[in-house]
Amino acid sequence: MRAYLDCYPCFFTQILKTSRMITSDERKIWNILNEVSLTIPKIPFGATPPEIGQEVYRIISKMTGVKDPYKKIKEECTRQALSLYPEMKKLINSSEDRLMTSIKLSIAGNVIDFGAQADFDLERDIEKILSQDFGINHYQEFCEVLDRAGKILYIADNAGETVFDRLLIEEFHKSVIYVVRERPIINDATREDALLSGINEVAEIMSSGCDAPGTILKFCSEDFLRVYRSSDLIISKGQGNYEGLSEEGRPVFFLLKVKCPVIARDIGIEEGSIILTKAKKR
Amino acid sequence: MRAYLDCYPCFFTQILKTSRMITSDERKIWNILNEVSLTIPKIPFGATPPEIGQEVYRIISKMTGVKDPYKKIKEECTRQALSLYPEMKKLINSSEDRLMTSIKLSIAGNVIDFGAQADFDLERDIEKILSQDFGINHYQEFCEVLDRAGKILYIADNAGETVFDRLLIEEFHKSVIYVVRERPIINDATREDALLSGINEVAEIMSSGCDAPGTILKFCSEDFLRVYRSSDLIISKGQGNYEGLSEEGRPVFFLLKVKCPVIARDIGIEEGSIILTKAKKR
Repeated sequence: MRAYLDCYPCFFTQILKTSRMITSDERKIWNILNEVSLTIPKIPFGATPPEIGQEVYRIISKMTGVKDPYKKIKEECTRQALSLYPEMKKLINSSEDRLMTSIKLSIAGNVIDFGAQADFDLERDIEKILSQDFGINHYQEFCEVLDRAGKILYIADNAGETVFDRLLIEEFHKSVIYVVRERPIINDATREDALLSGINEVAEIMSSGCDAPGTILKFCSEDFLRVYRSSDLIISKGQGNYEGLSEEGRPVFFLLKVKCPVIARDIGIEEGSIILTKAKKR
Repeated sequence: MRAYLDCYPCFFTQILKTSRMITSDERKIWNILNEVSLTIPKIPFGATPPEIGQEVYRIISKMTGVKDPYKKIKEECTRQALSLYPEMKKLINSSEDRLMTSIKLSIAGNVIDFGAQADFDLERDIEKILSQDFGINHYQEFCEVLDRAGKILYIADNAGETVFDRLLIEEFHKSVIYVVRERPIINDATREDALLSGINEVAEIMSSGCDAPGTILKFCSEDFLRVYRSSDLIISKGQGNYEGLSEEGRPVFFLLKVKCPVIARDIGIEEGSIILTKAKKR
C-alpha cells in the first residue's frame, strides 16, 4: 500500500512525539523536524508508509544518538502483557472456540502501538475486542489453510503484542517461524523483545533483515525471503506489515486493528475495526 | 509568539486540507507538500506562525495558480453572518450590557476559521459563547481605554467574522479604522470581504500591507504602521493577529477564542476559552 496524503502530516506528528521522548530541547527537535522535512521529498511518490517511516525514524537516531528510544516502553509493555498471560490462558481454556479466542486476543495485543496510535489501555481494549465483531473475517479460509500448512511464518508487529502472539502460536500445534525486525524501530518487536516474551519456547525466531516499521520485501534478507516464499501460511500482524504486504500474491492473512483513517480507506472498512483477512493480489 | 513544535505538523495538515479544496490530483498535492517540506527548514527558528503560514500558503497559490482558494467559502460565511445580523442586533438591544454582548458576539464570530480549526457550527457556537464565561477578562480596563480613545484601530481576522466586528464597532460610537489583509490568505478578511459585510458604513477600511495570516509588523506598510503607532486603542481579533502582536507594548486588546493547544499554552489557559486580554510586553 502506498502512502496516502494523510500520512504526510502524520509522519511529522510521530517524529515530534518520539523526539520529545528523547529530549526537551525545542531547538534540537525543530532541527530533527527540519531534517525530516528535507528528507521526505527525496522519497519517491508511491513509497509505502514503512519505507518513509524507516527513513524518517533513522533521522532521530542519527541526530540524537539514541538508537532505541522505545527500549524501556517496549520492556514495560512486554512485562505488562506477560502479567496478563495466565488470565488470557484461562480465557482460552474456557472458551468454546480456542483458536478464535486466541486470534482475537492476538489482535487485542495489536493495540500496543506507539506509531499510528499511542493512546491505549491494554486491559480495557482486550475486553472490548473480545466482544467486538470482525469487520472482515476470513476465519473459515484461515482454518483450512492452517490445517494443511506445513510451514507457518508469523510476522510480528509490536513488543508486548508478542506475548499475545505466543498464545495464538500455542494453539497451532505446528512448527512456526516468528519474524522480528532486524533493528529497533519505534516499538516494533526485535529478537530481544521476542525472547523476553518467551516466543523461543513456541517458535523459531528469525529476523526479516529489515528495520522498517513494516515488512518491505525489497529490503528483507535473502534468508527471510527464502522462508517467506516457501511458507504455506503467512500471518502478518498489524498495520505496518499490512502496508508492506497488502498487494502480495502469497497466502498472507492479516490480523490487525484498523488504527488510522488511511488504512481504513485502503481496506474499505471503518476505523477501529478488527480484521482477519486474506491478501488479495491487485 | 514564536511557532511551537506542534505548529510543524499542523502546517502540513492545513496545507493538505487547502490543497484538497483545489484539486483531487494526489500527485499534485504530494508535490505541494514536498515543496512546503523544502521551504519550512529555510525559515529561521523563532519565526511566528503567521510568518510560516505566509510562506507555505503562497506555495499552494504558486503551484496551482489559484490565488484565493477560500473565495467562495468566504462569501458564503459572510452571507450567513449577514443573515444573522438582525437577530444579533436584537440580542444586543435587549441586553443589559450592550458593549459586553457585542464583544462576546464578536468573539463568537471568531469561530469562523478554516486555518486552525475548520469544524464549526456558527449558530450553535454563538449560543455557546454567549453563555460562556471569559477565561481572561480585562473588560474594565478595556472600557476605560475605549472611553478615552480618540483613535481606534480594529484588526480583522476572518471573513464572515467581519459582520460580528461591525456589530461591535457600532457600539463604540467612535471613529474606527478597520484593518484587513493586503491579499487573500486562507479565509482571512480582505477589503472585498469587509465591504461585503458593510464595514465601510461604520469604519474606514485600511490594508495592513501584509498578506500573512496574522499581523507581522515588519511586513506591514508604512501607512499602516503610522496609524498603528498613533492609535489609542488597538483591537486584535483572532489567533493569527495574537501570534504576531502578543509581545507588543502598544495598547492592544486581544479578542479571541482559543482554538489550538499551542495558543492555549502560550496564554496559559484552556483550549476553548474565550478571552479579552491586554497585551503584555514580555
